[in-house]
Amino acid sequence: MKQARSYTLAEIASLLDLRLVGDDDCLIHGLSTLASAGPGQISFLSNPAYSKQLAACQASAVILSEKASEQYSGNRLVSNNPYVSFARATALFDDSNDQASGAIHPSAVIAETAKLGAGVTVDANAVIGEGVLIGENTHIGSGVVIEDNCELGRDTRLHPNVVLYRRARLGDRVVVHAGSVIGADGFGFAFDGERSIKIAQLGGVRLGDDVEVGAASTIDRGALEDTLIGDGVKIDNQVQIGHNCVIGKHTVICGCAALAGSVTVGEYCVFGGGSGAVGHITIADKVQVSAMTLVHKSIETAGTLASGTLASPLTEWKRNALRFQQLDSLSKRLKDLEKRVD
Amino acid sequence: MKQARSYTLAEIASLLDLRLVGDDDCLIHGLSTLASAGPGQISFLSNPAYSKQLAACQASAVILSEKASEQYSGNRLVSNNPYVSFARATALFDDSNDQASGAIHPSAVIAETAKLGAGVTVDANAVIGEGVLIGENTHIGSGVVIEDNCELGRDTRLHPNVVLYRRARLGDRVVVHAGSVIGADGFGFAFDGERSIKIAQLGGVRLGDDVEVGAASTIDRGALEDTLIGDGVKIDNQVQIGHNCVIGKHTVICGCAALAGSVTVGEYCVFGGGSGAVGHITIADKVQVSAMTLVHKSIETAGTLASGTLASPLTEWKRNALRFQQLDSLSKRLKDLEKRVD
Amino acid sequence: MKQARSYTLAEIASLLDLRLVGDDDCLIHGLSTLASAGPGQISFLSNPAYSKQLAACQASAVILSEKASEQYSGNRLVSNNPYVSFARATALFDDSNDQASGAIHPSAVIAETAKLGAGVTVDANAVIGEGVLIGENTHIGSGVVIEDNCELGRDTRLHPNVVLYRRARLGDRVVVHAGSVIGADGFGFAFDGERSIKIAQLGGVRLGDDVEVGAASTIDRGALEDTLIGDGVKIDNQVQIGHNCVIGKHTVICGCAALAGSVTVGEYCVFGGGSGAVGHITIADKVQVSAMTLVHKSIETAGTLASGTLASPLTEWKRNALRFQQLDSLSKRLKDLEKRVD
Repeated sequence: MKQARSYTLAEIASLLDLRLVGDDDCLIHGLSTLASAGPGQISFLSNPAYSKQLAACQASAVILSEKASEQYSGNRLVSNNPYVSFARATALFDDSNDQASGAIHPSAVIAETAKLGAGVTVDANAVIGEGVLIGENTHIGSGVVIEDNCELGRDTRLHPNVVLYRRARLGDRVVVHAGSVIGADGFGFAFDGERSIKIAQLGGVRLGDDVEVGAASTIDRGALEDTLIGDGVKIDNQVQIGHNCVIGKHTVICGCAALAGSVTVGEYCVFGGGSGAVGHITIADKVQVSAMTLVHKSIETAGTLASGTLASPLTEWKRNALRFQQLDSLSKRLKDLEKRVD
Repeated sequence: MKQARSYTLAEIASLLDLRLVGDDDCLIHGLSTLASAGPGQISFLSNPAYSKQLAACQASAVILSEKASEQYSGNRLVSNNPYVSFARATALFDDSNDQASGAIHPSAVIAETAKLGAGVTVDANAVIGEGVLIGENTHIGSGVVIEDNCELGRDTRLHPNVVLYRRARLGDRVVVHAGSVIGADGFGFAFDGERSIKIAQLGGVRLGDDVEVGAASTIDRGALEDTLIGDGVKIDNQVQIGHNCVIGKHTVICGCAALAGSVTVGEYCVFGGGSGAVGHITIADKVQVSAMTLVHKSIETAGTLASGTLASPLTEWKRNALRFQQLDSLSKRLKDLEKRVD
Repeated sequence: MKQARSYTLAEIASLLDLRLVGDDDCLIHGLSTLASAGPGQISFLSNPAYSKQLAACQASAVILSEKASEQYSGNRLVSNNPYVSFARATALFDDSNDQASGAIHPSAVIAETAKLGAGVTVDANAVIGEGVLIGENTHIGSGVVIEDNCELGRDTRLHPNVVLYRRARLGDRVVVHAGSVIGADGFGFAFDGERSIKIAQLGGVRLGDDVEVGAASTIDRGALEDTLIGDGVKIDNQVQIGHNCVIGKHTVICGCAALAGSVTVGEYCVFGGGSGAVGHITIADKVQVSAMTLVHKSIETAGTLASGTLASPLTEWKRNALRFQQLDSLSKRLKDLEKRVD
């Protein structure tokens, strides 16, 4: 891993608004974990379980809490929330935007009616349709296809080979990772007794500000109205959001989760990896759904949900799984027996 | 949402073959739900549960059944199947084909031996290989890659960045949404005790007429014979179809469902979201598989299948999930107790 | 299916190092199953369950074991491991590399500082960034995007529209199928009480030699250290590998499986279709995980794991699923009853 940037500890303390105890001039060129950090690197202590690694840590400085600071004599950056400060520190060493040149690659195909703000980067072979509006400093990666009349905010980034269907709207500071598709048709058909008749998907799709979408995820356009992704929503890889979902602000959706159509999700929810929800339900704020759990009905209060069974050795599992199929009858036999014993 | 087209009610009645009761000349420029439709829009009543919304509906006209029509005094289009008529009405306002210019973009790379029918559109940066045949009015989106010797029917549409591997064959009126991959290698390896030896995937893949494939879905080519997708099959986003599957006509496969290799599925089946089937099984016609259900053996009769457990609060679920691991022993204890009570 | 190559049986025996009993000069132009093979084709008998198909087989020759060979009078190729020999035979008829021209397509966009080995093929509209190193005979498909400073070994193949993020490293003889994304950001955020703060993903991603990745799969870059995929690992379509996973050599991961972040997987493991693992766990060598099973804790010994319940008719399932939610109380009632009977 190459980390080309470097800062003095004093600079880092100032940039992250942290109190520095130690050597102002110590030069830092990267970040690492407590266990593997070496000289020139910063580490962080957030989870008290790792406190014992502090003594042997070789990092040039550690981000930690006021309390932990008292027990550490090395260079330290004191934070109210060391994990958040660590997150902010990673941005200082991030090289992911180095390719943003502010230039339009000559191989890009851009419609004459598209309007690009100042500082927009368009990489090789990107295709931008008629009437597209792109805000300042937004970066369109190689091979991206933006269909007609899309609108993108400023400081937004589309990684390579992303596709935005016509009229998709993305806010400011949105990130969409490679291969994701925003605004494809929702899955709507009317069955006429012989075949499925396509319901043209006439709605749109809107992503608020500060939304991040992982790689190879899909967010469908609405049938009649728009699919809506709230500000600050974070979506991982290979997530599927059906048409007309409405996702509340700051909700987090982990990898391979899938929401069927017309699911309304509250704010600050968390969908675990591979979890899902059936269509046409409403989920309250701050609901957490465990990995691979299917939400099958509306949820009215905050809390954590789970479904499924625990992984066990195959032969053991098989015996229990067969009994699951007798569970209702086992229950009735138990009730019957209770009566007889009474 | 912009809906640029408009029609008089008389035109719509004629186009959809419906009986109009009301104002022939009323101008319609879009569709909406009963609850949110306004003047200039058509709505529809299909599910009787929404009948009470009819009275307050602001739509300029409503598509409804003969029976419901008797209780409505506004402009109405009477249909034997209002939902199907609604589906047909959406097509009138669909702008998704506006980009079909019938032109070949100069940046497209098309092999000399490829043969394109009349009216074919090829968008920017598409790549079309040797010996490819494309039927009339088919539309190849930006960034699509069609490898050598593929054959596509007429009025077919490949959305941006779709990939067709060599020799893939698609029928007429097929739609493949962005980022989907048709004809990649099936997952076949022979283990020699030390490593996995690749089984070259020599078969092909064929999609019948009127097939629709969602975004970021994958349909693998066969190992020796072809993977076959029947006429009228509808496949949602992020669906995975393994090599040598044979999918019967008009089957519907919802988002994130996955079929392992060599699964034979009947006609008019429905796979719910995130459902799946293990390999080398046969599923009868008209089988419905609930969301996130795994079909683990062949199914010989029509009907609906389900597996898994219901989502519940985490602590409650955990107690029950731990008991699941004792289920076989609980069952034996119950049997033992029954004997003793007898 | 067209299979353009042909060989005599003597050539095949020599190429695959098998003992031929029969006609040296018999011309073979393809492979098929015992049931459907015809003249000019080879078949194979690996699973004894298919022995009865041998007598009626129309193939020009059959690959089989020493033992099965004794009961067959036709042309035969005798192998210690007929399935592996069949796998090697498929390579003889594979046309998937016919497009490797060894040429750079004029529409490809290649940075001046990229270094391409002898015999490298770069197809139309591929984009190769600054400082990229590509080994001999590697084949870069159409529409592939390789960001700055990636390194690829020799005889490696990226199918169309694959994306490699900056600094990704792939070994020799790696295959990545269409639409897959290697090195996108891991899903890391620190919650500050109001919003999710991005943790820049500063690590990289490395794939060893002989790795195969299916279509539309995603392997994230690490947060601080690298995500590592061992030699010989085979990954199917739509698989998601989270940041900082370490996958041991020769492990096989089937379609739609998903590993959360920081999962350490041993060698020679098999993850079934749609299976998964929660983050920060360690899985021993030779663990097999059944389809759609979620591994929720570290696994210390080899063996096969399963979770979930078996698919059953919906109404039956519903009764049992409701009882699952009472399982802990059923268990307590049983215990109570046992005491009373005692």
